Amino acid sequence: MTDILPSYVQGEWWTPDAAAAASATEVRDASTGDVIARVSTEGLDLAGALEYARTVGQASLGELTFHQRAVLLKQFALALTERKAELYELSSRTGATKQDSWVDIDGGIGVLFTYSGKGRREMPNSKVYIDGNVENLSKDGSFLGRHIYTRLPGVAVQINAFNFPVWGSLEKFAPAFLAGVPTIVKPATPTGYLAEAMVRILVESGLLPAGSLQLVSGSVPDLFDHLRLGDLVAFTGSASTAERLRAHDSVQTGGVRFTSETDSINASILGTDAVSGTPEFDAYVKQLVVEMTTKAGQKCTAIRRAFVPEASVDAVIDAVRARIAERVVVGDPRAEGVTMGPLASIAQRDEVLRQVGRLEEAGGELVIGSTDAPSVMHADGSTGAASDGAFVVPMLLRFADAASPALHEVEAFGPVASIVGYGSLDEASGLVARGGGSLVTSVATHDPSVAVALASGIAAYNGRVLFLDRDDARSSTGHGSPLPNLVHGGPGRAGGGEELGGIRAVLHHMQRTAVQGSPEMLTALTGVWHQGAASQPGGVHPFRKSLAELRIGDQVVSASRTVTLEDIETFAEFTGDTFYAHMDEEAAAANPFFPGRVAHGYLLVSWAAGLFVDAAPGPVLANYGLENLRFITPVSPGDSIRVELTAKQISPRETDEYGEVRWDAVLKNQDDEIVATYDVLTLVAKEQAPQPA
Amino acid sequence: MTDILPSYVQGEWWTPDAAAAASATEVRDASTGDVIARVSTEGLDLAGALEYARTVGQASLGELTFHQRAVLLKQFALALTERKAELYELSSRTGATKQDSWVDIDGGIGVLFTYSGKGRREMPNSKVYIDGNVENLSKDGSFLGRHIYTRLPGVAVQINAFNFPVWGSLEKFAPAFLAGVPTIVKPATPTGYLAEAMVRILVESGLLPAGSLQLVSGSVPDLFDHLRLGDLVAFTGSASTAERLRAHDSVQTGGVRFTSETDSINASILGTDAVSGTPEFDAYVKQLVVEMTTKAGQKCTAIRRAFVPEASVDAVIDAVRARIAERVVVGDPRAEGVTMGPLASIAQRDEVLRQVGRLEEAGGELVIGSTDAPSVMHADGSTGAASDGAFVVPMLLRFADAASPALHEVEAFGPVASIVGYGSLDEASGLVARGGGSLVTSVATHDPSVAVALASGIAAYNGRVLFLDRDDARSSTGHGSPLPNLVHGGPGRAGGGEELGGIRAVLHHMQRTAVQGSPEMLTALTGVWHQGAASQPGGVHPFRKSLAELRIGDQVVSASRTVTLEDIETFAEFTGDTFYAHMDEEAAAANPFFPGRVAHGYLLVSWAAGLFVDAAPGPVLANYGLENLRFITPVSPGDSIRVELTAKQISPRETDEYGEVRWDAVLKNQDDEIVATYDVLTLVAKEQAPQPA
Repeated sequence: MTDILPSYVQGEWWTPDAAAAASATEVRDASTGDVIARVSTEGLDLAGALEYARTVGQASLGELTFHQRAVLLKQFALALTERKAELYELSSRTGATKQDSWVDIDGGIGVLFTYSGKGRREMPNSKVYIDGNVENLSKDGSFLGRHIYTRLPGVAVQINAFNFPVWGSLEKFAPAFLAGVPTIVKPATPTGYLAEAMVRILVESGLLPAGSLQLVSGSVPDLFDHLRLGDLVAFTGSASTAERLRAHDSVQTGGVRFTSETDSINASILGTDAVSGTPEFDAYVKQLVVEMTTKAGQKCTAIRRAFVPEASVDAVIDAVRARIAERVVVGDPRAEGVTMGPLASIAQRDEVLRQVGRLEEAGGELVIGSTDAPSVMHADGSTGAASDGAFVVPMLLRFADAASPALHEVEAFGPVASIVGYGSLDEASGLVARGGGSLVTSVATHDPSVAVALASGIAAYNGRVLFLDRDDARSSTGHGSPLPNLVHGGPGRAGGGEELGGIRAVLHHMQRTAVQGSPEMLTALTGVWHQGAASQPGGVHPFRKSLAELRIGDQVVSASRTVTLEDIETFAEFTGDTFYAHMDEEAAAANPFFPGRVAHGYLLVSWAAGLFVDAAPGPVLANYGLENLRFITPVSPGDSIRVELTAKQISPRETDEYGEVRWDAVLKNQDDEIVATYDVLTLVAKEQAPQPA
Repeated sequence: MTDILPSYVQGEWWTPDAAAAASATEVRDASTGDVIARVSTEGLDLAGALEYARTVGQASLGELTFHQRAVLLKQFALALTERKAELYELSSRTGATKQDSWVDIDGGIGVLFTYSGKGRREMPNSKVYIDGNVENLSKDGSFLGRHIYTRLPGVAVQINAFNFPVWGSLEKFAPAFLAGVPTIVKPATPTGYLAEAMVRILVESGLLPAGSLQLVSGSVPDLFDHLRLGDLVAFTGSASTAERLRAHDSVQTGGVRFTSETDSINASILGTDAVSGTPEFDAYVKQLVVEMTTKAGQKCTAIRRAFVPEASVDAVIDAVRARIAERVVVGDPRAEGVTMGPLASIAQRDEVLRQVGRLEEAGGELVIGSTDAPSVMHADGSTGAASDGAFVVPMLLRFADAASPALHEVEAFGPVASIVGYGSLDEASGLVARGGGSLVTSVATHDPSVAVALASGIAAYNGRVLFLDRDDARSSTGHGSPLPNLVHGGPGRAGGGEELGGIRAVLHHMQRTAVQGSPEMLTALTGVWHQGAASQPGGVHPFRKSLAELRIGDQVVSASRTVTLEDIETFAEFTGDTFYAHMDEEAAAANPFFPGRVAHGYLLVSWAAGLFVDAAPGPVLANYGLENLRFITPVSPGDSIRVELTAKQISPRETDEYGEVRWDAVLKNQDDEIVATYDVLTLVAKEQAPQPA
């Protein structure tokens, strides 16, 4: 008897006892029907697993900063890369071709790498994330407001679909982990053995903080009864299941965050300019065939509705038919030459054929493919019927009536799309909207005015819109590919959720809170120095301090220096910047912003550097940039300037011997008016260099 | 018979016919019980009003940019300011004191001013809002990703509470209007006459774009049946009503956005350091009394739970009692000297007394105030019982058992709070969390370590946290005041919504969509030039073009200029910036980032200005700043630099004769390596100055 697929809970691998195992669900190879594993959670202590996440998981992740978690994500990615052959092997049993497996396995690993990089580049090396700017709430600057994100205090439960067992797990795990929220992942039963193998590699790597990742292999019927405020659920699957889960009290009134990604009836529009013979026409056809056949069309982002100018419908159908005939070989993915595998299970196949039947009843004419059992290539290279495999061929249905509700509502979750003609761009937009909210729509056009017109009509109905043309057809990542950089999700029928999108997904696992207080308190709460908080001027020049020695609030208050007309002319001559505001008294005075000739802004910031710098070699390694420079008060000949430079944020790097220091710079004139404000960005060594003996 | 309060729908004032009017609801003066108005929507064409918003309202708002809408918000604020005496007059009938009315009326007008300013400062003068940075999705830069917000295509339905009829309407209307989404406002019946007066002033101002604001005075029982994807509902009121509305199919599966702000059991913590005699103790007591009595405690943000170190409970009760005795005069707000008015209605009074009874049953001991009918001051200055007014006195209940569920769950929506002692800071955090999610918690402490410890425990359970101490006690806007700058809302019991928070609330009325395409397409879609899109070098120097003439993509490609060691030394001497990386070959070469002595970054950007500037007077008025400067490749003596400056974003101001132009600046060396990138910010005249004849 095949083994029961284990779960990983409370730090241990777990399987049900023998009695429970008798009623386990069998999982079969998609191509051959062989039993691969059995699945059961009979007797699993789900409440215990949740509480373990909330206690042990929260505690271990809470000890790490964003950067430390990000470094671990990269190590997870490396651990999986090293053993990915094991995953590819199992993946073929799900019906995935090598290309499909690459999307799932390397795609999933890629998400970890991306989040590792973004976490370190775009988040601070601390535990609080700041959102937006300081809001000054009082005239004297003693009362400020700011928005911060802190992690949710519960557990992230991730309920995934069967089609991408690795990617689907990792795209949710990575942002949760980066946020500091422990994960319980519940893969879909038909392909859960692949997710189990992935989790096993991570567990065996020894890198996982205690309680940060648990796996439940099997069903979780009473899950929502155990959830509470501070927990969140990310569900991927059917709209009907999402609806049922969302209706639970814990979501409706208990404050559990629930997001769903459900299959949507995504569209792809051929622009009015993209007639047969244009590169956009070819790119459109190529993309449509890719989307129909990749993963045998079992993608929530696949194109279901092709909207094509009336006059181009026949040409598109012919081109798609030709390309499928030329490129698509259906069969067991372990056979050489197969480009499209079976559906995930016999049950899925039957469901797809049923939905195709509904589309036909609603007026869809099957112009490519058929619902008959196909002849396929077997693993041994032979060809013929496959009684135990879940095979279908690519199918395209043509609708004469664009208003047919089924076209916009019925989804056959396989290699199936519908095509219909449209008249005007407004009509095309209207058809997209009829989908009731989609994950993605793509548009093939080389005409920016077509792109703008369609975007204004369809953007609000989509989570993502891709514009395909001759300039990006080769480099495009494709209609159906969610990317870690971009939000994945869509309004309405698509589930209303948002995942990925870089740091946006991390923040989804955190609570945004407005904090109000004195500059001193906001400095303490955020770890970032706020104007008005205590500073430490005098003493050792802060450029002489290593990261280990430097404290936020350490400050240089410079001497003041008087700007002369000669200085301005010298600078103009040296730089070539003879703009009239610096060189022509009469023209400068006529300018609405200047009293007469004024110093160059670049002169002021250059002098400021001269005023604050400590020149000798030391821990400060480089000035790598400058941000948010604003010139407030013009400086006339005879005015003096001085600078206050204060250590604002200190971010040691986890994997380098230095880190970033952000300095708050304020230039003032002899009347204490603010001349300019900006942030100076420097790299500073973690430790003092050893001194020569 | 009193007139029926009209609605304003489809561009006209509407009242039900006489037959329907017979069953209208009567609304009474809170202090005297006199009938003020009657309310009915019998026969109102709600579906027509919604469709009018989606068509006429969307069209008229769609013609305006963010800045144009922002300018209108200011004009609305001025129109209301001019006639605010009418509003104050009506407001006193709701039971509001002058101070209460100021919060509602001037507070509401203030929201309009704030959004007008923020809209112009923080949003572009266009119709698409960009979120975050460019994501490069291909090696050759031909395929980019970006996130944009476009407005929702439907209607914003705003269902408001009775306590702040003006502010409550305007705080939702302002961001919806700025987003370009038409509003239908439905005030609460008991005080809807004040909202009606506010809407009437706006209508009579003649400033409202057609369909941008409609008013429904009365109930809307079948509202949700008429809503669909693209519409959104912002509800303020009781948690039970919110629960019922949220459960509707249009929200659960139809994609209608629903947010709610519900009354939460907010907390206020006295820090362990803030013992009697400290300024924080006094500030805590003062704030608690203000929160209990302002608007007679009818605020969703009011303090309901006072958490105080065990040892300080008696001292706080005594101080609160003394302050109430000294400061609080209950009565008709039209009487001189009254500082706390009645509740909004007799029904509200009865409900509050019922909830106080529940708190008492659960162990709460009434240590201040009583549930007996109070003697109050009448409008004529006399004092005595008030049989027809909804009066109660401030009440404080003491709980011995901090674990009593009622303390954390029962809300008496009036001048009522509970006080309980705590031991450790962890315990105080745990008590806050028991509220199940709150709008706001305040903390009185002068110890940053206390603030940090509490913040880490409570931030995720609150939409806002205020830290009160001696530094901000005078300037604090107070525990109970939502501000347009800061998010208003909270997780869990507080409704899970977010409102206000500046532009965040505007974006809530828009859909975020990831767009992918070539630089050319992203430029067309966003109105912002993207690196890699077509540019127009040569021809007239772009500094010679007014805003009317300039186009994004207009470009200067400069000559190149060689940097010598002498230049570096000249610059060091002139600026005083003798940092060793510029002056000491050996030390510079030992630095991990430099090959040897390198040019100052400030020299490079100063020279770049000299290379790209067109010096003669013209439309370019000033360089007011610089953003996102990054130094990429160091420049050694003998290297040459040149600059490409490209018009990136053009933002004419609505109310000035000039606007902002953002330029993309790229410095390259003789090997085409990128030396530095940044944005140059300039002010440019809308038109060429007239030439002297």
